[in-house]
This record gives sequence, C-alpha cells and structure tokens, in this order.
Amino acid sequence: MTPFTTMLIIADNLQITHPEISAAVQQFRPGPIQEMVSRCIEAGAQAIDINPGPLPREAEKKMRFLVNAVQEVTDSPLLLDTTNPDALEAGLRVCKNPVIINGFSIEPHKLERILPLARRFDADIVGYLLMDNGQVPSDETDRLVVAVELYGAFAGTGLPPEKLIIDPIIAPVLWDNGIEQDRAVLSVIRILPEILGYPVRTIAALSNLTAGHCPRAKRMLLETAYLAMLAASGLTMVLLNVFHRDTVKTAKTCNALMDSKVFTWEEIP
Amino acid sequence: MTPFTTMLIIADNLQITHPEISAAVQQFRPGPIQEMVSRCIEAGAQAIDINPGPLPREAEKKMRFLVNAVQEVTDSPLLLDTTNPDALEAGLRVCKNPVIINGFSIEPHKLERILPLARRFDADIVGYLLMDNGQVPSDETDRLVVAVELYGAFAGTGLPPEKLIIDPIIAPVLWDNGIEQDRAVLSVIRILPEILGYPVRTIAALSNLTAGHCPRAKRMLLETAYLAMLAASGLTMVLLNVFHRDTVKTAKTCNALMDSKVFTWEEIP
Repeated sequence: MTPFTTMLIIADNLQITHPEISAAVQQFRPGPIQEMVSRCIEAGAQAIDINPGPLPREAEKKMRFLVNAVQEVTDSPLLLDTTNPDALEAGLRVCKNPVIINGFSIEPHKLERILPLARRFDADIVGYLLMDNGQVPSDETDRLVVAVELYGAFAGTGLPPEKLIIDPIIAPVLWDNGIEQDRAVLSVIRILPEILGYPVRTIAALSNLTAGHCPRAKRMLLETAYLAMLAASGLTMVLLNVFHRDTVKTAKTCNALMDSKVFTWEEIP
Repeated sequence: MTPFTTMLIIADNLQITHPEISAAVQQFRPGPIQEMVSRCIEAGAQAIDINPGPLPREAEKKMRFLVNAVQEVTDSPLLLDTTNPDALEAGLRVCKNPVIINGFSIEPHKLERILPLARRFDADIVGYLLMDNGQVPSDETDRLVVAVELYGAFAGTGLPPEKLIIDPIIAPVLWDNGIEQDRAVLSVIRILPEILGYPVRTIAALSNLTAGHCPRAKRMLLETAYLAMLAASGLTMVLLNVFHRDTVKTAKTCNALMDSKVFTWEEIP
C-alpha cells in the first residue's frame, strides 16, 4: 500500500516583512501580533510560523517577546523561523507550545550552531535540502544526495528520525528551471521514505511557488493545483498564506481525501 | 527521474442521458450534437467521448450517425464509449479521426467481443480495472492483479503496449470505502509503469468522483483537488465535464506544471 497522509496547515503570515508586525516587534507591543495569530487560527491555521528575519539587534529579547505574545493566544505548534541561533535558543527557552526549529541545512554554520539546539531542547527541526554553499540543488538526484547527507548529520544528534522534517525547497515557477525543480520537489517527497527507510516527515513553503509579480487569479490557480499535487505526493506539513481562502479550502479538501475515515460532505469546506 | 506527463482533456459531455442529445440521436438530427461538440472544443476539450449508452435499437446506424456528425465538426480524437460490440464496429468502420475504443475489461464477453476490435481496426483501447464479474476491485492490490491479467489479454492481440490505456476506475466518494478506493486509484496510476515495465497510459473518469447528490461548490473543490492529485500521480488522459470551468482551468494549470517548457503566465488560464 502506498502511504498517504493529511497535511498540517501552517500559517506563514507572521513575518517581519509585514509593516504592522515589524512595528509591533520594534515597540514590543503584543496586540498586533496576537490579532494576526488569532486571524490565522480563525482562517484555518493549525500551527504558526514565527518569522522575525535575521534579527540584527535585540535578537533574543525580540524572539522571547514574539514567542510569549503568540503562545498567550494559541496552544498550537510554533515554528521558530530565523537563521539567528541566539534568537532560536532564546525562543526555545520560553516556548511552552509544541515547537519546531525552522531550520538547519548542511551549511557548516547551521550544522554547528542550529542543529545542536534540536538535541539540547529535544525539539523537532526542519532540514532544508540546500547544498553546503546554501544553493538550491539543481535536480532530483542532487536533492536526494543532499537529503542523505542531511539525514546523516541529523542522525548524529541521537534524536529519533521522526523529529526531522525535510523541506525540499519549492522553486518560484518564474525561475529559469523553476517548474522542473518543482516537479523534482514532488518526486523527492515521494521517494524520501524509500531512500531513508522510514516514513519521513516533509514540509514545503507554498508561497515560494508564485514569488514575483503575477496576476492574482493565476497565482491562486497555480497555488491550489500544486498544493493538491504536494498532497498526492505525501507531504505532511504545508506552510502557506492562510488568508488565501481558496488555498486553505484546497488543503482541507486534500486532507479529507487523504484521511482514512468514511467520507462526508461536512469535511469539504 | 520520476516520469511526469500532461493530461489529454476529454469531454464526457456527449452522453445519451442528456435529453437533447437523446432526442437528436432518435431523430438522426446532427445539429444539437454538433453544437454540443463545438461548445466542448471551445471549453477546452482536446478529445470527445461519444457515449450513446448500450443502444438497444438501431445500434449500428446510430453509432455511424454519431461518429459522422462529430467528425464533421472536429478532427480531435474520438472515444467510442458503448458496451455494444456491433455499434463499436460500425463506429470504427466510419471513423476517420484518431479513435479510441472505450473499452474492454477481463469480463469474458468483453474479451471475446470488444478486445478483438482493437486488433481488427488497429485502434487504441481503454481497459477497465474491473474484475471478471464486472465488480470494482476492493483495493490497490486487487487492482494491480486485474491490471496484470488485463495486460496479458491485451498482449495476446499482438498490438503494441502503447495502444492500451488503463482506467483504474474512480469510485464515488460517497461509497462506503470510496475515498480509500480513490487513493488506491492514485497509487495504481503511479505503480503501473513499474509493474508492467513500460510507460503505461492511463485514463480516469473524473465525474465518477462526485456522483450522487452534493452541493455544487463542494463538488468543484473536490473535483479540482483530486484532478491535480491524478496529475501528480502521472495520469495521461482525463475524462471530465468540460463545462465545469474551474476543473478545466485546473487541468490546464496542471499541464503547465507538468510540461517541460519554461514557465510563462500565459500557460495558466
């Protein structure tokens, strides 16, 4: 039997690039952050990605503030999404919700500074299929080679393999070879359990697909179609803009189709 | 590399169950049939399924009339979709367009009466994954067992394997185990090339998925999501209601994602 799974819906909306969120973080005002999180949960988010950027100043204080602000309004899992290891550590120290470090790769500084935090805090961690120079691998084979290396590094922590969540890196379709890469992403999600020999958890950041300027209706069509393709390939977690209503509806519909229960129309939004 | 493919979009709209089509066939009036076909092509159909039912009376005359009416307005491939072997033969004799017999199964009377027509007319033929008693197999394994038997029977004709198009039979989600079956359909489409050892062509009738009473918005959501799942699984032909605009848009979007060309927004409808 081919394994199928439902996808955890993770909001990518809590981003420092959002001006109101940025201002709230600068001023340590929890209100706008908590309102954003409540709207995400209302829109269908089952987990929240906290993305404060690289946090050049007051990194630890800001990350603590963000994690505390968010966990005051939800018990959902939180993804701590920064490349700043000090901020990650500060966030992990205060986080009471289920937590996922987002994330590491085989880049030497990430293996050295970020991966050990998973061990120290017994946290789940996202591993990106990026090469050791930080570049996106060029095809399916290269992604699988990186996956084996990434898994090897992760296994060295002694954590159980279920705590690793692999991100095969969706490419913008507008990249020269973007759609080829995105087909490779589908293949890699499907093949990883065979290659690594256990039911590997995977995550993908759907908004990457349509990065760049494009007409909204077409963006939504591309996003919903590719999301269902990811679901059919066995994706276990999807990071998306939960304010894209059609995309969330599609995610829920895919989950209804992938669930083992008897079907009822109530499951379709 | 995992093989991916675009899907041929086939209209399932030309059906005898449609009252105007039924009346036109009874009265041998080509107008309503040709108008329907032109609307299907306009809506995105790349091939037309001609489904006149079992044709209890004047079967041969009616099938000839239908095929001639349709091929006067399109050069697209035609699927001759009836269980009546005499009607099939009559249609095959007059058909000048590329033609696909739809179809046979391992039921004895179909092996005896329908499969030989593919050999005689050197036609492509759809093979349904139905058991020899006409029932739908209960799971993925049973479908694959039937597929091997079906392929064996087809191979006996001496036709090249590329002329066989396997239909794994989408189940209505409202069946007791409907969504389990529909997951098995996805697996089977993916696994068939490995099992049979060549790039097996596949077809699926999408309208089956939402057969029975259901709210239109939910029906569309289910249809588009499952269609993209079929595309990700490697489906090569899809039979659908081309007047479902969102479904056709999704099919075209999937094809843009599965095509090897450089992506442009013009490919997305």
